[in-house]
Amino acid sequence: METLRKNQGLLIVLSGPSGAGKGTVSAHLRERMPEITYSVSATTRPPRRGEKEGVNYFFKTRSEFEQMIANDELLEWAEYVGNYYGTPRRFVEEQLAEGRDVLLEIEVQGARQVRKRFPQGVFIFLIPPSLDELRRRIEQRGTESEEVVLNRLRRAEEELKEMNHYDYVVVNDRVEQASERLRSIIIAEHCRVERLLSGKTVSWGG
Amino acid sequence: METLRKNQGLLIVLSGPSGAGKGTVSAHLRERMPEITYSVSATTRPPRRGEKEGVNYFFKTRSEFEQMIANDELLEWAEYVGNYYGTPRRFVEEQLAEGRDVLLEIEVQGARQVRKRFPQGVFIFLIPPSLDELRRRIEQRGTESEEVVLNRLRRAEEELKEMNHYDYVVVNDRVEQASERLRSIIIAEHCRVERLLSGKTVSWGG
Repeated sequence: METLRKNQGLLIVLSGPSGAGKGTVSAHLRERMPEITYSVSATTRPPRRGEKEGVNYFFKTRSEFEQMIANDELLEWAEYVGNYYGTPRRFVEEQLAEGRDVLLEIEVQGARQVRKRFPQGVFIFLIPPSLDELRRRIEQRGTESEEVVLNRLRRAEEELKEMNHYDYVVVNDRVEQASERLRSIIIAEHCRVERLLSGKTVSWGG
Repeated sequence: METLRKNQGLLIVLSGPSGAGKGTVSAHLRERMPEITYSVSATTRPPRRGEKEGVNYFFKTRSEFEQMIANDELLEWAEYVGNYYGTPRRFVEEQLAEGRDVLLEIEVQGARQVRKRFPQGVFIFLIPPSLDELRRRIEQRGTESEEVVLNRLRRAEEELKEMNHYDYVVVNDRVEQASERLRSIIIAEHCRVERLLSGKTVSWGG
């Protein structure tokens, strides 16, 4: 009798260029799929209006953040436009071990590090419908100086070249649609034969 | 600038042991996703109650069917419990060329042939929640003699071993849920990087 592996927690990595809309799409998905664990990043960037400690980010000083790096407490980290961003490691590993799906919404540099440690993760690259739209979104955010906007745009163009290292590309034309595609990818990945038949198995129909 | 391939039609192959519920799930999916083309098989099996020519099957005599085999008009065919089943080839190829997704609901033998010709297809293996449930479903159909039922069950056990040649396994516990998983798989496959970046490309954001 064929055996099926018990569904294990998936590590879902949502990345893509700055301005692609990762935060908005991930917030929408959170409403749709409350059963997924959303990892909270640490950052040294100052809070934007409405952002809450422990919900959107853990806000850290530079020296606190560097201590976390030194203690190997971060699954990935990156310095991005002058600020540190990183993912506290232990929480993610605990959730996965308990069989829960965990979503990381992280920058492209960080995703590269996670891919080395968790090649079995599901890597999703979110892109805006066009470069013009990307510029519009970055400018509209209105919290950055013109120089930072230009920096981000140049970086975004570089980051788009990383697309082919991902498993999926999702175009963020409308948030609802992008979030529905993410949901589909997660459901589909749980049905993939190599996830169901590899490693520890449980009896099918037993 | 990175380029994205225009979404092409997917060949989706839904297979699995007799009694898994392929017909019911595929009918449910047809309601959910009317944009998908559902290939109609040819068969020499007599129509069951309510089945319509050209809708459920093209009903053929043995000699008509053997002529189609001789003319290479079938994408796949199999003899199964005394009857021929097959997929007319031209219709499928035309639909794919026009960019439409095509779903084939076929037996395990036939799926094996399609996999050789269309390795880029999406191969989904539908299974019942357990072997006991499979027996119940085959018996409940009530159109077969006890010998045929036993034949089908033995065959189904053999067929379950094919699971690892598929891309996805979908457990048919409830039809709505199985159909939703199929839908997710189709949406997800359209986002897969290797489908978007290989072959002919179109400009992204151009």
